[in-house]
Amino acid sequence: MVEVGLTRINVLDGVAAHCVAMLDRSLLLTDLYELSMLEAYDANGMAETAVFELFFRKLPPGRGFLMAAGLEQAVQFLEAMRFTPDELDWLRKSSLCSAAFCEKLTTLRFTGDVDAMPEGTVFFPNEPILRVTAPLPQAQLVETRLINLLHFQTVIASKAAHMVLAAPGKQLVDFGLRRAHGAEAGLLAARAAYLAGFAGTATLLANRDFGIPVVGTMAHSFVQAHDDEATAFERFASARPKALTLLIDTYDTERGASIVATLAPRLAARGITVSAVRLDSGDLAAHARAVRAILDAAGLRAIRIFASGGLDEWSLLSLCRSGAPIDGFGVGTSLTTASDAPALDCAYKLQEYAGRPRRKLSEGKATWPGRKQVYRRFTDDGTIAGDIVALLDEVADGVPLLLPAMREGKRADHLPDLAAARVHAASSLAQLPGALRRLEPADVPVEISRGIRRLAAAMDRTATQDQGS
Amino acid sequence: MVEVGLTRINVLDGVAAHCVAMLDRSLLLTDLYELSMLEAYDANGMAETAVFELFFRKLPPGRGFLMAAGLEQAVQFLEAMRFTPDELDWLRKSSLCSAAFCEKLTTLRFTGDVDAMPEGTVFFPNEPILRVTAPLPQAQLVETRLINLLHFQTVIASKAAHMVLAAPGKQLVDFGLRRAHGAEAGLLAARAAYLAGFAGTATLLANRDFGIPVVGTMAHSFVQAHDDEATAFERFASARPKALTLLIDTYDTERGASIVATLAPRLAARGITVSAVRLDSGDLAAHARAVRAILDAAGLRAIRIFASGGLDEWSLLSLCRSGAPIDGFGVGTSLTTASDAPALDCAYKLQEYAGRPRRKLSEGKATWPGRKQVYRRFTDDGTIAGDIVALLDEVADGVPLLLPAMREGKRADHLPDLAAARVHAASSLAQLPGALRRLEPADVPVEISRGIRRLAAAMDRTATQDQGS
Repeated sequence: MVEVGLTRINVLDGVAAHCVAMLDRSLLLTDLYELSMLEAYDANGMAETAVFELFFRKLPPGRGFLMAAGLEQAVQFLEAMRFTPDELDWLRKSSLCSAAFCEKLTTLRFTGDVDAMPEGTVFFPNEPILRVTAPLPQAQLVETRLINLLHFQTVIASKAAHMVLAAPGKQLVDFGLRRAHGAEAGLLAARAAYLAGFAGTATLLANRDFGIPVVGTMAHSFVQAHDDEATAFERFASARPKALTLLIDTYDTERGASIVATLAPRLAARGITVSAVRLDSGDLAAHARAVRAILDAAGLRAIRIFASGGLDEWSLLSLCRSGAPIDGFGVGTSLTTASDAPALDCAYKLQEYAGRPRRKLSEGKATWPGRKQVYRRFTDDGTIAGDIVALLDEVADGVPLLLPAMREGKRADHLPDLAAARVHAASSLAQLPGALRRLEPADVPVEISRGIRRLAAAMDRTATQDQGS
Repeated sequence: MVEVGLTRINVLDGVAAHCVAMLDRSLLLTDLYELSMLEAYDANGMAETAVFELFFRKLPPGRGFLMAAGLEQAVQFLEAMRFTPDELDWLRKSSLCSAAFCEKLTTLRFTGDVDAMPEGTVFFPNEPILRVTAPLPQAQLVETRLINLLHFQTVIASKAAHMVLAAPGKQLVDFGLRRAHGAEAGLLAARAAYLAGFAGTATLLANRDFGIPVVGTMAHSFVQAHDDEATAFERFASARPKALTLLIDTYDTERGASIVATLAPRLAARGITVSAVRLDSGDLAAHARAVRAILDAAGLRAIRIFASGGLDEWSLLSLCRSGAPIDGFGVGTSLTTASDAPALDCAYKLQEYAGRPRRKLSEGKATWPGRKQVYRRFTDDGTIAGDIVALLDEVADGVPLLLPAMREGKRADHLPDLAAARVHAASSLAQLPGALRRLEPADVPVEISRGIRRLAAAMDRTATQDQGS
């Protein structure tokens, strides 16, 4: 990993460990229908154990796999889950549910179990990545926010992982807060990208809340606010001399590079090192070559080149393959909005209630019934050979991927922190076969077990008989 | 507007008026480079007046216009802008800036002016929708979060407005919280969609915080949790009898409709009215026709049909044109992620500093210099004839679109609330010429004034001379 010396890279382990990002914890962050169903369950005494599973139906074009992310935030949400007195007060006044039912909501907590793929695990369509086992009302109410938390970070981690594979050995930095969909999206996108192998983020709050290395350069407005570029560079260098990166494309990239070539020795005499220059427009490969030549001719081989501006995994791949002398990349919009596939088809579906498997048959959206586990088999050299989705009580070869995340409403002891999840993500990516690492990937090796198929067929026969009766 | 009787439509004016959605207000929700530049501005005493403008560079395919949204949240952010003692404490410990500079940040507030298009205004590329006039450090620091707030809601309002035009007279409801990019995105998407003409949202918190009508049906899991569909419907109806909507596609849509046809008279005898049924899968037009026939044959003409499931403006247009008997639509993912164009190319650029116009010349990203206003001309029947972007001191025909939103750091008196903005949005849409209302729109009638072109040319000549010297 080449470390481009952008202004300050900083990890505040001690501080970050004490700061948990305060995401919105309101239980009103849900769909009205969850509450409606809870009231109806309550009226009919339906509180037996339900099993819901969250899975993704298919891969978007250009993705060979997905990467699980967001479990930490999901567990925090479930652990803290309750209606506050203010929220209950509002619900009572709103007449959205009866006063008697509101009263029962005061003691609502999550007391169930969660099994999930650890964050950073690579997975494929139709594999449950999370299973909730809890009294029906609890497992139902959390649907909206669980999907909201797990879908988004999984979308971003998956996108980021493909970028990491497209630009091996390059320093990738999240520049995307401004185009992210709101504050929480910006913050969690920084987290998901770091999890997937990004080196850092430009977002200050992601440093404070998650301990993610924070990186910064300068904006065009800084250069524009000065009457000439050389003065702008010199002033910035004097005020922020550490790990100095100068943005050289405000007027003309090569002229910007020449100014740096003249300025760098003068700054060096004052003990200030120009660490990198940033390009942000035009043909980045061509500019990088020209800038490299200008800097090298001035004996400034140590100054790194950092590029940004509308990049995605395809342009990263193309720039890296072309051998353009670029050491690191800032990726914004395409990362934090996952612009080619900002949403994936995922679902959180009831698979079992009161000891009986359940199945939805809606056209094009039928689900596999029953409590399931995913087993992964490997070749001798540790590459993923294939997965099998099986019933929990079936015998299957391979390593089980869904591990305990919560028991009786409490976080499991061994849940990995972000640093551990990032290591797991890297080793998970290293296990991918070549055919799935490409941006035009092969088909995915997922098998549905014989037990699940038998169960589904048996349920369909029963359903047909029920209809007939 | 057909009002489908989904479970509870509810506006809590009194309550909502007292609840301001608490979005994340942290000033650390910014890029490190903003802080770096502030420190360098401070070191060089650069605190004269800067003018930044926010504009969108181009329309994505399938959009004839954009709709301005998010100003209310932007103004709230600027009014409340300050580093908290905790944040300053963290900054000091982080060594991300010098102790002396941290000290100066304690008194940082926004004291500038903001002029902006009122929310709900229809606009076109290269038109500034917001102008900030403030001391340079203030105007710089707010860049990241201002774009983050205004870009997202504008993206969603624009998408929603095209859906509103595609489905005239139909009740459109936001169902998209689960796939939105986090909590804030879900909440603000509900707001932006309502602003643009949606009738309501499924998100409870959007009702509490913004007074947006909240709407709900039932989920497949409710039906699945019962041993048969008829029991599920009957129990739900008994527990939640008001504005009752039954989801009929869990197993087989037409069979679901027949169950409703049998059940509705029995419920009616108990004083419970089935208001609507919801379809969520398969060929919605075909199912709607079949379901309509089943209900009509049973004399249940008053039961409305509501449809959902992967809808976007194109499928809405097609369903409405086909004359499918659908009265309302729930739109989720494509709305709250603006899935075909989740990000637009927008920028917040320095146009003037210390009384001098400024221009960025980066390849493909050059900006028009100077403080600007947008003037809109209308035909005799009130249709938009064309816009002209002009310098503030130029004389131009038409109605100025940028209006005072803040003066000296305080909110302008007349800033419209959400209800007023929604009325403005509707009249703004009504002013669109037919050619711009289509999903395959005509070119946009925006002119750049002679004054701006002259100024840009003069600046480019000077820049060339500077380079030569």
